[in-house]
Amino acid sequence: MLIVQKYGGTSVGDLSRIENVAKRVAKSKSEGNSLVVVVSAMSGETNKLIEYAYHFSKNPSKREMDMLLSSGERVTASLLAIALQEMGYGAVAMTGRQAGIQTDSYHTFARIESINTNAINVELSKDKIVIIAGFQGINKEGSVTTLGRGGSDLSAVAIAGALDADACEIYSDVDGIYTTDPRIEPKAKKLDYISYDEMLELSSLGAKVLQNRSVELAKKMGVKIVAKSSFNDNEGTIIAEEKKDMEEVLVSGVALDKNQARVTLRGVSDRPGVAAEIFSKLSDAQINVDMIIQNASSDGTTNLGFTVPESEIDNAKAVIESFGDEVGSADFDKDVCKVSVVGVGMKSHSGVAASAFSALADAGINIEMISTSEIKISMIVNEQSGEDAVRVLHATYDLDK
Amino acid sequence: MLIVQKYGGTSVGDLSRIENVAKRVAKSKSEGNSLVVVVSAMSGETNKLIEYAYHFSKNPSKREMDMLLSSGERVTASLLAIALQEMGYGAVAMTGRQAGIQTDSYHTFARIESINTNAINVELSKDKIVIIAGFQGINKEGSVTTLGRGGSDLSAVAIAGALDADACEIYSDVDGIYTTDPRIEPKAKKLDYISYDEMLELSSLGAKVLQNRSVELAKKMGVKIVAKSSFNDNEGTIIAEEKKDMEEVLVSGVALDKNQARVTLRGVSDRPGVAAEIFSKLSDAQINVDMIIQNASSDGTTNLGFTVPESEIDNAKAVIESFGDEVGSADFDKDVCKVSVVGVGMKSHSGVAASAFSALADAGINIEMISTSEIKISMIVNEQSGEDAVRVLHATYDLDK
Repeated sequence: MLIVQKYGGTSVGDLSRIENVAKRVAKSKSEGNSLVVVVSAMSGETNKLIEYAYHFSKNPSKREMDMLLSSGERVTASLLAIALQEMGYGAVAMTGRQAGIQTDSYHTFARIESINTNAINVELSKDKIVIIAGFQGINKEGSVTTLGRGGSDLSAVAIAGALDADACEIYSDVDGIYTTDPRIEPKAKKLDYISYDEMLELSSLGAKVLQNRSVELAKKMGVKIVAKSSFNDNEGTIIAEEKKDMEEVLVSGVALDKNQARVTLRGVSDRPGVAAEIFSKLSDAQINVDMIIQNASSDGTTNLGFTVPESEIDNAKAVIESFGDEVGSADFDKDVCKVSVVGVGMKSHSGVAASAFSALADAGINIEMISTSEIKISMIVNEQSGEDAVRVLHATYDLDK
Repeated sequence: MLIVQKYGGTSVGDLSRIENVAKRVAKSKSEGNSLVVVVSAMSGETNKLIEYAYHFSKNPSKREMDMLLSSGERVTASLLAIALQEMGYGAVAMTGRQAGIQTDSYHTFARIESINTNAINVELSKDKIVIIAGFQGINKEGSVTTLGRGGSDLSAVAIAGALDADACEIYSDVDGIYTTDPRIEPKAKKLDYISYDEMLELSSLGAKVLQNRSVELAKKMGVKIVAKSSFNDNEGTIIAEEKKDMEEVLVSGVALDKNQARVTLRGVSDRPGVAAEIFSKLSDAQINVDMIIQNASSDGTTNLGFTVPESEIDNAKAVIESFGDEVGSADFDKDVCKVSVVGVGMKSHSGVAASAFSALADAGINIEMISTSEIKISMIVNEQSGEDAVRVLHATYDLDK
């Protein structure tokens, strides 16, 4: 099998951990696999370099930041190659450029445009283990670029896609994806399998494992991801296409997002297009609106509710106030959170939403807003009730079984 | 003027020193110069990375070492560019590759084959200060290479040569080149000017400032070097072509090399070619022979004396012993050192050697071997007398005046 492995910053956090990674890579190689290994910088290195840059400037040039930050992954890649060579394995380290990773020119959050896999293939054909510095590429002018947060995951998925690899194993300090956050519900179980779409909807559960951009790319390129821990030999979670029998499982996971604030507008003018104007002004102000609810009121005006990230509530307030009387009375509430129930089984089974609502009602938890998609039900509840709601829903759908 | 400046590891040893370098660069820029700045890694960084590599292997692959070690200079270059931008100067950081530095494939001690200055010139034409990561380039396959010890000096001189710069300023923590080591003779004076050839012969005096490879390259390319300290505004020493009036100065400096051992062979067989065989075997064993003296002996055999680096005396012994009786009796003496008097004035003035010999004789210092070149007289003396010999000769040629 051709496998792309990716080891995050914690997994390569010091020399003995790099040695541990070398042993894992060697084991997989000696099992007969062809291996490409993508590595992050040693944990703490990137932050140290960022601190260095901010010593000189509050707003350092992004082009130079990319040259600065891309150095950490090169160090790890070289060291891992040296460690493997010492163990008797053929290994070769490559920078993003050498691995053929071409990006656009948006420094510090570049997008991969293409991967020329020639150099990688040449080394694989010599039976070498190819170690690639993650998080980086070059643009058309030859300047170093980086891919933003979670960039090494993106490198790994993109390379796996370009090589048509059998799997992309993403190693971190977490065993895989859980049915919910084990700190909230100790009965949370690790999932064996989850579909791309469910993973995207449960992003907060996978936040420490891999980011949405990587999942989206994996879905687009059909890359099978295996999320595993580099600190044990547990099985991990496969993130891949939806399987037929997955629909038998109603719910895969329950996620909690505390970074939510609710805006309620009562008595919005019935002039056509007012709502559209509000949301386009919020968008102009770079404010991400999540859930939206609109109801006709009895007096002909409209009631409008929506949520924004808690950190953006003050900006949202300023935008709303710029509308004056047209928006009626406005109410801003930071004290809310979003509980989401996700599962592809919802597509073919009715009643999932109803059982969620009644379970929360039975537990005395009031639902303030609801939004549903094909595979997700999200509910806004009072922040104090959020963790209780997660536990109630986790039990409702037998996720601890 | 177009000036290439190079700042060594001590000059960029921490963030406040990088800030200090930024100020020096900015000052030179605001005086109207076009500037290319070559930087080393922050002092200690390269050694740290070497230690990391040796944690994994006693003999790490040179290709991977190059990828590893080249990261330190990138960090400094990015940070210096960011610091200058913050001060309002247009600055752009480049890796060795981006600066167009093409080398051969001898990893960890590559030679620069060519420099494509297009990218540098484009930025200079936009009035940018170009900051280049020293010590590195890429080979034809696109792998990162490094230039060995003193590599950033080489980068700077080569770039200055390729750009036909007016000067290449090499900054370190030393003021310039002295008439002798001030730790031995406190009356040592800083030289204003020294020719390439004298500098090459006095390499031990310049060891902390710049290495012979850089001086050789500067001579070949006609690059005027100015060796200065980055910690003060003293004038420094110019290293350039020999000037007409330099011949009026008999002696420029006195150097001491303690890393010498002497081998004396008495009664070497008179078979033709024995001496040649001895030296070719020493050369095969990578032993650098420095001074050689051969005398016919009264009984038809030959006496042969030569010096090797002290660290190689045991290897030399093994080579000599492999010849058996043919080399007569062999004597190995680590307790010697070499004192050299250097000056282009010797070319046109006789009697310099004679005055050196008599000055040492007057001081009761016995000369064990002598070797002379057009601009240098080297003498092997007992190691205990070395520093005395330096002081005597320094005074003999009025170098403290």
